[in-house]
Amino acid sequence: MARSNKDTRPEARLPRGLGDTSADEVRETGRMLSIIRDVYESYGFEPLETPAIEYTDALGKFLPDQDRPNEGVFSFQDEDEQWLSLRYDLTAPLARYVAQNFDRLPKPFRRYAVGPVWRNEKPGPGRFRQFTQFDADTVGTENIAADAEICMLAADTMEALGIGKDEFVIRFSSRKLLDGVMETMGLGGPENAGRRLKVLRAVDKLDRLGWENGVDLLLGKGRKDDSGDYTSGAGLGPEQIAKVRSFILAEHDAYTLDAQLGKRPNDQYKVERIGPFYVGDRFLDNYAFIENVRTLVHGSALGLEGANELEELVDVCEAAGFGSKRVRFAPSVVRGLEYYTGPVFEAEITREVKNEDGHTVRFGSVGGGGRYDGLVERFLGQKVHATGFSIGVSRLQAALAALGRAGPQAGAGPVVVLVMEKDRLADYQKMTQTLRQAGIRAEMYLGTAGMKAQMKYADKRGAPCVVIQGGDERAKGEVQIKDLIEGAKAAATIKDSKEWREGRPAQVSVPESRLVDAVRDVLARHKG
Amino acid sequence: MARSNKDTRPEARLPRGLGDTSADEVRETGRMLSIIRDVYESYGFEPLETPAIEYTDALGKFLPDQDRPNEGVFSFQDEDEQWLSLRYDLTAPLARYVAQNFDRLPKPFRRYAVGPVWRNEKPGPGRFRQFTQFDADTVGTENIAADAEICMLAADTMEALGIGKDEFVIRFSSRKLLDGVMETMGLGGPENAGRRLKVLRAVDKLDRLGWENGVDLLLGKGRKDDSGDYTSGAGLGPEQIAKVRSFILAEHDAYTLDAQLGKRPNDQYKVERIGPFYVGDRFLDNYAFIENVRTLVHGSALGLEGANELEELVDVCEAAGFGSKRVRFAPSVVRGLEYYTGPVFEAEITREVKNEDGHTVRFGSVGGGGRYDGLVERFLGQKVHATGFSIGVSRLQAALAALGRAGPQAGAGPVVVLVMEKDRLADYQKMTQTLRQAGIRAEMYLGTAGMKAQMKYADKRGAPCVVIQGGDERAKGEVQIKDLIEGAKAAATIKDSKEWREGRPAQVSVPESRLVDAVRDVLARHKG
Repeated sequence: MARSNKDTRPEARLPRGLGDTSADEVRETGRMLSIIRDVYESYGFEPLETPAIEYTDALGKFLPDQDRPNEGVFSFQDEDEQWLSLRYDLTAPLARYVAQNFDRLPKPFRRYAVGPVWRNEKPGPGRFRQFTQFDADTVGTENIAADAEICMLAADTMEALGIGKDEFVIRFSSRKLLDGVMETMGLGGPENAGRRLKVLRAVDKLDRLGWENGVDLLLGKGRKDDSGDYTSGAGLGPEQIAKVRSFILAEHDAYTLDAQLGKRPNDQYKVERIGPFYVGDRFLDNYAFIENVRTLVHGSALGLEGANELEELVDVCEAAGFGSKRVRFAPSVVRGLEYYTGPVFEAEITREVKNEDGHTVRFGSVGGGGRYDGLVERFLGQKVHATGFSIGVSRLQAALAALGRAGPQAGAGPVVVLVMEKDRLADYQKMTQTLRQAGIRAEMYLGTAGMKAQMKYADKRGAPCVVIQGGDERAKGEVQIKDLIEGAKAAATIKDSKEWREGRPAQVSVPESRLVDAVRDVLARHKG
Repeated sequence: MARSNKDTRPEARLPRGLGDTSADEVRETGRMLSIIRDVYESYGFEPLETPAIEYTDALGKFLPDQDRPNEGVFSFQDEDEQWLSLRYDLTAPLARYVAQNFDRLPKPFRRYAVGPVWRNEKPGPGRFRQFTQFDADTVGTENIAADAEICMLAADTMEALGIGKDEFVIRFSSRKLLDGVMETMGLGGPENAGRRLKVLRAVDKLDRLGWENGVDLLLGKGRKDDSGDYTSGAGLGPEQIAKVRSFILAEHDAYTLDAQLGKRPNDQYKVERIGPFYVGDRFLDNYAFIENVRTLVHGSALGLEGANELEELVDVCEAAGFGSKRVRFAPSVVRGLEYYTGPVFEAEITREVKNEDGHTVRFGSVGGGGRYDGLVERFLGQKVHATGFSIGVSRLQAALAALGRAGPQAGAGPVVVLVMEKDRLADYQKMTQTLRQAGIRAEMYLGTAGMKAQMKYADKRGAPCVVIQGGDERAKGEVQIKDLIEGAKAAATIKDSKEWREGRPAQVSVPESRLVDAVRDVLARHKG
């Protein structure tokens, strides 16, 4: 009957850009999240959970174009016809929450949140339509120490996850600096907001396009990409472009003074972010670097304010023990989101690793954030200062795995008690329960197949050992413990049956009363 | 400017049936989930995560009625016009996953999953459109020991959460028994499937409607409810209704034989589920009770099969130490979902508690499940046996809170380092970081307000103490630690200023080098 319904059977499949997460990954994510949580808690942040669904307008999305209601976010109408959306980040719901509970919240309000977010975008390799973010935000203060804390928090999180001090860097800059540079070239004022946004968007593509024939074209007349698509430019003149360049590539240019320059003849003006930062023999610390950039914003009050703020930020970081190698000023950090208004941050893994194809790759950014002072204002009509940081959980997890810093696979399967005599389920279940009560992960084989299939099952589950009691063992009041890990090793190395017999036994028989002890012996053998 | 935009500002609000979760709740849920996870892991279940969004047809939902595409589930169309839905439980995605990965999975496949699910239903008090479930399922075996394990797992989970052996009961029955009863009254065969479903739906309302003028009417001609809505009945005759009654209320009827009956003159045939189960002086154990019910399914092969299976289930439970008081046969358990095909379970809190209004309430069911053999078949066209259990996390959490078994509030806030001199942020930050590095949750006050507001902030955050270093203390190289908990107590009880001075000091000054020790003293004082 069922077979004849084949045509009406749905296909078991997932929409593109969505995936299942296996046991090992779930465990590894859990381990990671718990470490991050501990760091965030130690900094005094409090957990908050908001639902997956919000009013579309509360998320700052509007759906005037009913032809494509799902552009960017997954949206649907409630029964009262109001538009709802799945959250696309954790910041917009935070702004809604703060606005809704403003009077009763302590100020500053400091919360962390972790959970899935959804983007209705064209999925690609490594791009998913559901992914997890881990955010920390401080809302309700313009104190720059709050931004400094975000940098310290990010650095402490990296280290807590086992990433060495010389393997990551927290890079920061300020939107006020870039805006200051633009002010000095006559792009200040509300009337130039559109062009400033174009400059921002162009600069944000530095990593992907490089400067030459990339960002420079986007700042000028525009650029045709490989597919032939044309992006119109910000219309800056050559001098203006040069000035933006000397700001954005300040880090790079300083680097090119380095003695190492000669070794990189084919340098394509891609931004460099390697290790500690020297110019010749001189270590260029944050104070010196910010001082350098000051000249570029000379004459712009906004730019100077940005530089002063970053110096304050550095003061706080230095006092808390975070020097210029871990938390570093980097003008090329701009962050793509329009809403940042002050300091911006990026957590970057600098350690290079070989990928599967043997190519050297750098993971780059695993999180970022910045100061945003307008999100709550959207609701309340009054400025509410805020700063925060968001970790891309699967990106960070991939980086940890590539660096070999993923935790030990807790994946050692359960001890499997085999069912040798089908009418004795109750006895086997009792043994299983005895193991569990001793704190040992265990299960009775719950299928209905024979011995061979049961052994195969135990293998597939990654069981460290199986417990066997057939008629012979029962008559003697014994159980047999078969060490599967040892057994597999032995089978792989021992060719000689004499050697096998004399070797360390992968199988022992013990009185039933010694079941727990014998299993513990096996587990202890394979620990760590 | 902002004020003038008031009309265009969105309102900060959530759609009905959706809520935010506060820090204490998030922590308490986390504690609970971690205990449940440990029990499930000890039983050998492996974690699996599936995405929130699935193809609508893969969830077993069809949307032929485009006028109400969101009936029951939240649905939306992908760019290729295929319908997507938010998952409404964790079982349907499991079926999709198993079908998709059938060949490579170990069999039986045993997984647990925890996460939010969404129902697009009319929300009411205590009914939400997003809530969390925690499921464990064993797929790919007809072995009744798998069902027994589910009962044991549920019982062990309740106890691990601190619910006493005499405060909960895992109740079980079998769909085969109810179907067997119906078979004996001529309602067997595929041609009566619709009527059997009506009987099932009626019986499932026993808790809410009671028997008389409730279920009995729904089994017969039909019933008009208080609002005047009419539900058509299953059309059973009086003898048939009586037979269903003697099955469903077997537990109740046995109870009514109890000597206590006289004390309950106004018994409205609501089902009784109190404590251990005696008939007179005789404890009615599972075997005896199943034997009683056997007479009702005499002549039905299906019914007898159901009784035999339940006896097997009891064998396994008894052997593992789960007697009839913790895991109990209860024919009135039917579970509302149509797809169950064998044993069904319910975890129930039996301990009565007073609610806020002083009324005695019983929490009832906090989870349930059963055997379902058709869900994977939908995809593969071949029967794949499965059994599972789902915990309603917030319901269970509410029960724990009412029973006073919620964990200690980890909510003690961070130690707050006050900012007494605004130009010394770096120094205060250093103290803060010193505390964190000693494993103490701490934060520097990150706002910009004065002393009074800072103390208020520390109070609001639940800080155990604040650290103060103004000019005087700085000159002496000291810090002041102010114990807020002690201070609040003292302020509440001590009227006399002499007594205050001589009493235990809520405030101490120590050399800066003793900061960590002094804070630890305060924390130790308030521990537990």
